[in-house]
Amino acid sequence: MPRYALLIEYDGRPFVGWQRQVDQISVQGAIEDALSRLEPREHKIIAAGRTDAGVHARGQVAHCDMEKDWNPFRLSEAVNFHLKPAPVAIRACALVADDWHARFSAIERRYMFRLMTRRAPETLERGQVWRVSSVLDIDKMREGAAHLIGKHDFTTFRSVNCQAQSPVKTMTEITIEPAVGLGGPEVHFRLRAQSFLHNQVRSIVGSLEQVGSGTWEPLRMKRALEARSRAACGTVCPGAGLYLMGVGYHDDPFAHLAER
Amino acid sequence: MPRYALLIEYDGRPFVGWQRQVDQISVQGAIEDALSRLEPREHKIIAAGRTDAGVHARGQVAHCDMEKDWNPFRLSEAVNFHLKPAPVAIRACALVADDWHARFSAIERRYMFRLMTRRAPETLERGQVWRVSSVLDIDKMREGAAHLIGKHDFTTFRSVNCQAQSPVKTMTEITIEPAVGLGGPEVHFRLRAQSFLHNQVRSIVGSLEQVGSGTWEPLRMKRALEARSRAACGTVCPGAGLYLMGVGYHDDPFAHLAER
Repeated sequence: MPRYALLIEYDGRPFVGWQRQVDQISVQGAIEDALSRLEPREHKIIAAGRTDAGVHARGQVAHCDMEKDWNPFRLSEAVNFHLKPAPVAIRACALVADDWHARFSAIERRYMFRLMTRRAPETLERGQVWRVSSVLDIDKMREGAAHLIGKHDFTTFRSVNCQAQSPVKTMTEITIEPAVGLGGPEVHFRLRAQSFLHNQVRSIVGSLEQVGSGTWEPLRMKRALEARSRAACGTVCPGAGLYLMGVGYHDDPFAHLAER
Repeated sequence: MPRYALLIEYDGRPFVGWQRQVDQISVQGAIEDALSRLEPREHKIIAAGRTDAGVHARGQVAHCDMEKDWNPFRLSEAVNFHLKPAPVAIRACALVADDWHARFSAIERRYMFRLMTRRAPETLERGQVWRVSSVLDIDKMREGAAHLIGKHDFTTFRSVNCQAQSPVKTMTEITIEPAVGLGGPEVHFRLRAQSFLHNQVRSIVGSLEQVGSGTWEPLRMKRALEARSRAACGTVCPGAGLYLMGVGYHDDPFAHLAER
């Protein structure tokens, strides 16, 4: 059975998350149902990262096994056709080796968190940003974030429900940039690591927001990390502002594909 | 009765448009209902521009008359509180003279049209862009748009339902810029005029898209304008990509207000 890698974008708002769940609408379920329209049987796709309810993706990656030899572009078009009207789209599709694995072959995950700083309720970005009323000090947040770069025990920034065997992860990058969206000022946090713990990005950004608003000194990020205790974490942000932007592979299956 | 000017943002998706209609959800109705929670009676607000179904606003302006003397900031906060969960927000509020009129005092309207150019269905921007599969030639669209600048009879680019007495309008600006959104390449059209005819922006952008995709030569914009016939118009774009960005006044009531 030929295996295909899918580059997937979705709006997380209507979904209970990536993972298929009985009687609930999931991104995985939407794509598997679309595949069943092409090859009528049960399909099981595997994703690089299982996003939570309300979390979005610009560059989720999953793989599927098909019976027929599909032209990859035609496969993406056919899946997109059957995905309607769900807000999920296959941006690109590539034939990969039988042992290529969307999750286990991945060497990097990139997340973005969109935070909107304004007092008026958000309208055009509802469900796509986390809005806070306070003005945030970007430099202080950067100073706080620097303490998290490198290999650490991230127990503080990990959901109590996290199923990872080890709380030790290596944070490769946290960049924090001001941005201007349609609705006004935003702050974009970009985090990069080989893999993340459950709720890690939301826990880190929520704690950095405490630093930005002046509630926490930047050094408290270091203290919180060293505490290795969930109780030392700041607010956990809502999933609405979180986007899985991309997944890295040694041999990127989409590298030579022009996006259409 | 003190009069207040309201600077309003909304996501047009759930609404039949600005204008109040029996048994249908309108932006005007949502705001008037919120005002009724503050001063229980029938309220009637007047907007600078009555946007159609699905059309968004970043800077719509309306005025309302109140019985009590409200602190403008408190009034905006109270209206925002009662607007929930409708995707409408008062961005700013200012006390204005009794004869100030959101519609008749306006000297300029600014619209933006967001067009996304990609093949995959849009997800994160669904209902907020018009997506076309073709790559568009920006320079040719600019060349075509230049023919519309100035005072002209815009009968070609006017809905047959338009109620304006005259089809003659003065187009002050049409700028066309490439942009990059979360979902990839976009083209942003910005149009500025004292006032617009019904469907004028959507008719113009739809025709310019024909130019950008190579279906029309740029000069055909001039021929279409000169035809003064609705039949000479290109495709009329869907409202989803259209945003009322701002309204100009000789004495901008919001000029001295810091946005929060």
